[in-house]
Formats: sequence, C-alpha cells, structure tokens
Amino acid sequence: MIEPAAVPLLLREDRDGVATLTLNRPSARNALSFALLEALRDAFAALAEDESVRAVVLAASGPAFCAGHDLKEMTGYRGEADRGAGKFAELFDLCSAVMMAIPALPQPVIAAVEGVATAAGCQLVAACDLAVAGGQARFATPGVQIGLFCSTPMVALSRNLSRKAAMRMLLTAEMIEAEDARTLGLVSHVAEPGSALSTAQDLARGIAARSPDTVRVGKRAFYAQIEMPLADAYAHAGRVMAENMLARAAEEGIGAFLARKGR
Amino acid sequence: MIEPAAVPLLLREDRDGVATLTLNRPSARNALSFALLEALRDAFAALAEDESVRAVVLAASGPAFCAGHDLKEMTGYRGEADRGAGKFAELFDLCSAVMMAIPALPQPVIAAVEGVATAAGCQLVAACDLAVAGGQARFATPGVQIGLFCSTPMVALSRNLSRKAAMRMLLTAEMIEAEDARTLGLVSHVAEPGSALSTAQDLARGIAARSPDTVRVGKRAFYAQIEMPLADAYAHAGRVMAENMLARAAEEGIGAFLARKGR
Amino acid sequence: MIEPAAVPLLLREDRDGVATLTLNRPSARNALSFALLEALRDAFAALAEDESVRAVVLAASGPAFCAGHDLKEMTGYRGEADRGAGKFAELFDLCSAVMMAIPALPQPVIAAVEGVATAAGCQLVAACDLAVAGGQARFATPGVQIGLFCSTPMVALSRNLSRKAAMRMLLTAEMIEAEDARTLGLVSHVAEPGSALSTAQDLARGIAARSPDTVRVGKRAFYAQIEMPLADAYAHAGRVMAENMLARAAEEGIGAFLARKGR
Repeated sequence: MIEPAAVPLLLREDRDGVATLTLNRPSARNALSFALLEALRDAFAALAEDESVRAVVLAASGPAFCAGHDLKEMTGYRGEADRGAGKFAELFDLCSAVMMAIPALPQPVIAAVEGVATAAGCQLVAACDLAVAGGQARFATPGVQIGLFCSTPMVALSRNLSRKAAMRMLLTAEMIEAEDARTLGLVSHVAEPGSALSTAQDLARGIAARSPDTVRVGKRAFYAQIEMPLADAYAHAGRVMAENMLARAAEEGIGAFLARKGR
Repeated sequence: MIEPAAVPLLLREDRDGVATLTLNRPSARNALSFALLEALRDAFAALAEDESVRAVVLAASGPAFCAGHDLKEMTGYRGEADRGAGKFAELFDLCSAVMMAIPALPQPVIAAVEGVATAAGCQLVAACDLAVAGGQARFATPGVQIGLFCSTPMVALSRNLSRKAAMRMLLTAEMIEAEDARTLGLVSHVAEPGSALSTAQDLARGIAARSPDTVRVGKRAFYAQIEMPLADAYAHAGRVMAENMLARAAEEGIGAFLARKGR
Repeated sequence: MIEPAAVPLLLREDRDGVATLTLNRPSARNALSFALLEALRDAFAALAEDESVRAVVLAASGPAFCAGHDLKEMTGYRGEADRGAGKFAELFDLCSAVMMAIPALPQPVIAAVEGVATAAGCQLVAACDLAVAGGQARFATPGVQIGLFCSTPMVALSRNLSRKAAMRMLLTAEMIEAEDARTLGLVSHVAEPGSALSTAQDLARGIAARSPDTVRVGKRAFYAQIEMPLADAYAHAGRVMAENMLARAAEEGIGAFLARKGR
C-alpha cells in the first residue's frame, strides 16, 4: 500500500479561525505511520505559531477514524540489525511527542470521530481537549489481542476514564459505543451519526469567537494546575487570573458585560 | 448597589449541631465581593474552633446561588495606579484561601444549590465535600465569554469532573443541568426543586449524629491521602485508622455494634 | 465463632489458567481476620510466582462478599497492655499490604461480588483491577456509624470514584446498588444476580487466552504510569512499548494479524 506522493497524508483547511486537520490515509485506516506522525508533529508546530487559528478540529478521511500504529511498517523494521529496537524507540518517542503536543498547543483541539478509533487512534481522541463522537463511532484499545499491550494509549486513557473503565478497555479489548464513551469520559460530546465533523466545527467556531489570549491562558493553566497539589494549583491559577484581569480582553469583556446589565 | 450596613452579607444559623451559612447578597446574585469573601473566611475560621458544630450547610438567599466574583467592584479598582494589579492579586488570594478552607475545615460542608451557580460560585460548590442541587439548579464556568477564563474555578472543577467534562464547561461556558452535574461529579445529590436546603440539612443532621472526632479524623485523612502516591496513602491511612481504633468513640461504637449482633 | 482448623479460610481452585480465590468464612460474613488476611497475603505471593496462572478471580462463600475487618477479633486486643495499639498497627499494615499486592500482582485480579461488600470488603473490590457485581450486590463504607471511619478503604475508593461520590459513601454510610457502583466507577461490570462468579471467570478466561507476558507488562505499566506526571508517564510507557515490540508474543501476534488482513 504505497501512498502516492501527490496525496498529502494530512490535510489542513482553515476557515473562520478554525483549522481542520484531516488524517488522510483512508486505505490504511489512517494508521499512524512515521510519515503521518511527522506530518501531525509539523502541523501542530505550525499551528502553535499561527495566530490566525483559534481552534483546531482533528478529523479523518474514510470510514475509520484511525487504526493506531502502522503495524505493517513497524514489522518492516524487524529485519534491521537490532531487530527494530532503535526504530521502535524512535517511533514511540515521536508518537508521544505528537500526543503531548495537543495539550501543549495554545489552541483547543477537538477530535471529530466517525467510525472506529483504536489503539493509538483511541489515544489521539483521549489526548484532545474535547472530542465529538458520531453516534456510531466506536473505541477500543485492543493491543492485548496481538501481543502488544496499549501501553502508550493507557497514558491518555487513564487520565480521562476511571481506573476500572480504563482497565476494562485495556484488558478485554472490548469495543465501546459512542454513548458509553461519553459516560466514561473518553469523549465530551455525541452527535448524530455523520455529524461529528460539523458539530466539532461548530464548537470550534464558538471557541474561535472568544478572545484567543483568554483561551490560550486558560488552556495552559488547565494542564499546568492539574498535576499540582491543591495549594500550588490555587497559587498558580490565582496568579494567572490576576494577570488575566489586566489584559485588554478582560477589561473590554467585563466592561461590556456590566454595560449590558445596565449597571 | 450599596448593601445596607445593617444586613449581614453572610448569615449563620445553628441548630442540632448543624451550622447553616447563607450567602446574603441576593440583589447582587450573591457575588463574592471582598466583604463577602472576608465574611466567609471569618465564618470558616470560627467554625473550625466551634465544637458545637458538627456539619455545615452552605446556602444562598434569593433566586441565584452565586454569580461568582463581583465584577463591578473589581472594575472599580482599574482606576488605581497599578491598574488594580495589587487588588486583583489580593482578591484571588483571599478567594483561594476561602476555597481551601472548606476541605481544611474539620466539619463536612454541604452546598445547597438552587438557581444558578456560576464561575467562582460554581467553584464554591465544587470545593464543598458534598453538594445537593435542587432539580432546577444550573452550573457554568462562563468566564471565557467575558475575557476572564475561569482559571481558579478550574482547580476545584478539574478535581471533581473528568478532564473533558471540565474542559467542556470551561471552553463552551455551557449551562449544566442538575442531573448532569451529578453524573459528571460536580454535585453528589439532586433534590426536588426547592428542596436542596432541607435535603442538605437532613444530610448534615445525619452526619452530626455521628462521633464528631471520627468525622473530623476521616475528613482530614481523605484530603491528606488523596494527593499521595498509593503506598504513602496507605501508610498514612493505616496510622490514622490504628489511632482511630483507640478513641473512645470507636471503642463504644464497635462495642455497641457487637452487642447488637449478639456476639 | 471458632473456625474449625480443617476448613481453610481461603480456597483456591485453578482451571484453564484462572485461579479462583474464595473467601471462606461465611459464618463471619468473610470478615478479614488476621488469619484470613495472612492467607490472602500468602496466596497472592504464591500466585505472583506461578506462571501457570494468567488471571485471578476473587470470590466469596455464603451470602455476603465481605464485611470488612473482624471487629470481634480486634476488640479482643483491647485487653492488652497497650490497649491493642500494637496489634491494630500490625493489622492495618497487613491489610494494606494485601490491598497493595493486588495491583502489584502480575496477573489481573477480578472481584466477583454477590451480596454485601462493606468497609475493607468494599476496599477489596476497589483494589481489584476489574470487578463484576451481581445485580443485587451492594456496597458501603459504613465505619462512620461505629466510630471507626473507613480511612484505609478511602484510599482505594478515592482512586476509583469521583471525590464527592467517595465522600458520599464515607460520610453517609449509604448502601450503593450494583448499577450505581458501576456508574460511579467502583465496579467495571454488572451481571445477572447470581452470575458474578461465572461472568468474572469468563472475563478471566478471556484474559488468560492472551499472551501472559503482554498482560503482565501492560498491568505493571498501568499502575506505574498512573502516578507520574504526563511527560514521565509517556517516557515510561514508550520504553515499555518499544520493548514489548521485541517480545515474541508481539512478533507472532502482529504477524498473524497482518496475515489475516491479507497484506
């Protein structure tokens, strides 16, 4: 399955301050090859510097959202002198860098999932700030079935789901339906089948209509404070908020709010 | 909107070992002005020393539970030489001290919420040990709409809700209904509309009927262990429990239990 | 209530790579006496070394799953010179060691709960990797009622449930039904009343059919990474996964998968 060089593995379309990234290896169920991971890494790096973009949607071409790592490509490295050890380490480092780029990105990232998101594909959904599942989307971390436990996906999974729910997915490889995924915390929204993308873009446009500085400050504070003890988290968030008060967006926003309330 | 000096901003009524604190700025939707935060701080400090009180209910006057910070008062500080920077830092420090006083209080604190709890008002609910929502209560962290991200509220929110649920509230400013608030973990109980206060007081009386030493020891252990690694948490809780066994309440309680079972 | 020496307090039956441990003090509602805790500790130590066992089910004899600590035995130590202080410390250390042995065990442990699981019995369920509740199973941490707060159970409870849900159980002593236990995260599965054991064994056989090395590596990584900051967690899981790729189970499993897909 050679991808023609002319077809980019990752599409980007910007509109109304929203960048939509589309995984574009439908014939490989959007498996995360080295090249696709590099394309994601580069796209996130470009977005981080792009002030015209205020929210990001992550979608996929074809019937599957993402099948995880590209097992065929990985198997190809088994012939190397070190049996692929170097390449595998490189691959998981790259993959983790992509996953961590999502919370680190200034703009919120919203997954739009139709079809199946499995293994690192499920991790990609878990790593996003928000996620919309089409009503027939399904999720699994089935690595245990093929001898490769979903150990990197569990990092994102176990920070979104309760322990036993995460363990259930990891140990049983069970497919989780969209509604259950929402109940468990893996996605934040469920849309009509086929409407995940438009729903995600609506959410993104709503966010893009806010002050980008405010959103950036808030998202950064969220992931910073969540790993701190309570007192440190409050000290950090308090400083962020006092500084936020001095920004023009807050001055204007609060002024307009008070004016509307007629005070 | 000047509050008449004769009307206290915070009411306290004690009965049956339960102190009910009532936010009492209904005309300002119980916004957390400096004065109201100071009143809360002082009330919690007094309760911490008051052995006659075994549980606390936090309620509110008027149709709204609490609208968050007092944006009008805050805006008034923009005229200062530092554009309010000093006052804003002082305000968020004070607010965080009040929020942290709730888990630090020896007695459990139960929020009783009717109407809307937004921004720092929503945070106040999240910071309580238990929370009862009347069936038509609603919750939001809408700061993003006015350029002031709910960064301190997120500290409490993200320690109660799953990440994507917290992010959903923070990024979309969406109003959450009472039942959803329970499913998401923001409140522990939903009561009939208009019954939040009586339900919270029933819960509080149930707690007040227990050994106050036992409840105090347990609550303190809860927040201590929750931030520790597993092994440390067990070591800590084990010491607490061994000591608890030597207290008179445990000796009597266990003795009575065994006698009832006829052993 | 003297247990005849001939009846073991803990039964073990192995079949199809699944070891089923059965708490066997039904007349004492399977209360966790010193002897039963020691039997559990020894059983887990033996299982940790037993490569023939690939998954563990933890069940109970009689109508109750487990009533928690053996209060009668504990009360017996009050006559000692130190009023039992030494024995109580020893007991909670032993109990915590048993609870921590579950996540530390190489094999997944699945609780099969019929009837009531209370206090340390509820903790035992929370400590397992997965848990199946029969439809009429019920759960509580009622220590507050007898002056002995469930402080060690809270360690496991608060790592499975949201804060307010855990506090609700701890402060109100309320009985939680099976379906609610699943919603709250205390159990992963609900089965027909009376079918918890067979459902748990089915799950265990499913896990036992996987590569034991893969399961062991994955379970260990789960509990290691869950207490790390995000970047450390990814670095750790990435190393685990790169190494997992080199194991024979992954090579064969992935090879077979690719062959099935006809690529």
